[in-house]
Amino acid sequence: MTDTTSTELAPVDIDPDLDLVLERRVDVPPSAVWAAWTRPEHLVKWFTPKPWETVDCEIDLRPGGVFRTTMRSPEGEDMDGGAGCYLEVVENERLVWTTALTPGYRPGPTGDDMPFTAVVEMTPDGDGTLYRAVARHRDPDGCTRHAEMGFAEGWGAAFDQLVELARTF
Amino acid sequence: MTDTTSTELAPVDIDPDLDLVLERRVDVPPSAVWAAWTRPEHLVKWFTPKPWETVDCEIDLRPGGVFRTTMRSPEGEDMDGGAGCYLEVVENERLVWTTALTPGYRPGPTGDDMPFTAVVEMTPDGDGTLYRAVARHRDPDGCTRHAEMGFAEGWGAAFDQLVELARTF
Repeated sequence: MTDTTSTELAPVDIDPDLDLVLERRVDVPPSAVWAAWTRPEHLVKWFTPKPWETVDCEIDLRPGGVFRTTMRSPEGEDMDGGAGCYLEVVENERLVWTTALTPGYRPGPTGDDMPFTAVVEMTPDGDGTLYRAVARHRDPDGCTRHAEMGFAEGWGAAFDQLVELARTF
Repeated sequence: MTDTTSTELAPVDIDPDLDLVLERRVDVPPSAVWAAWTRPEHLVKWFTPKPWETVDCEIDLRPGGVFRTTMRSPEGEDMDGGAGCYLEVVENERLVWTTALTPGYRPGPTGDDMPFTAVVEMTPDGDGTLYRAVARHRDPDGCTRHAEMGFAEGWGAAFDQLVELARTF
């Protein structure tokens, strides 16, 4: 039997077959990155790489709460990104949400064959931030498909938009 | 846009098509119920209705940590219950874990067509406890199958064993 009760955050060990990672050192503080990720009026401005847009956003910032975005294509078509669920909310430090649960921790949605969990971490570094965003997948197929869909370019371009916005705070 | 940031626990609204509920009023305090659920040496004594047994248990009691049990059939065959993931750990009050994520919040396992999240709540009531355990399913089919597998009898019999044990604390 094992009992390793602790109040520490659970570690997020990277598995290269299952996890995609974006790491950057940026010149804005963790509090600005946090604000950009957690305030709807900020998030809509950076979350989707241009020429796509995020046109709506629902944030209930607590474990079990909803995280939902609506994206608009360059042709003007709206896509509901579905209702994900926040798991960890540690201000200015770590934000975790998943598409494998709907709000209130309910498993789902049915039929999603590429669920992932996003672990977003901010570590102070001088007057800037070491930023790491990890997308954790269920299986190697989901990880490969997400990479081929353009994870690095997409999450990278969105994060560039975040930093540009955060410099104006 | 909606922003309902709060430090309150997210509410768990019951959906009768998706949720199975066990509610009891018992004469042991919340702290005893909590100990029975969170200490491996206690949990193995009550978690599986006799004549089945729980013969091993792994508990890393923090959000993202592992919850795993091994059950033994009356014929002596061991069944690994799989590695679930804790989501909320609020001492003597609320414990949430799910089979839809593996430890470290990774979605999975692949191929599980009846994932559920357990929300276990303890409310003080005089010198006893109002106890509620909710199993939240992805879809009505999963909920119906769990009911037909004997949720009410199984979780009820296990909880009777918990209360009997908790009276000895």
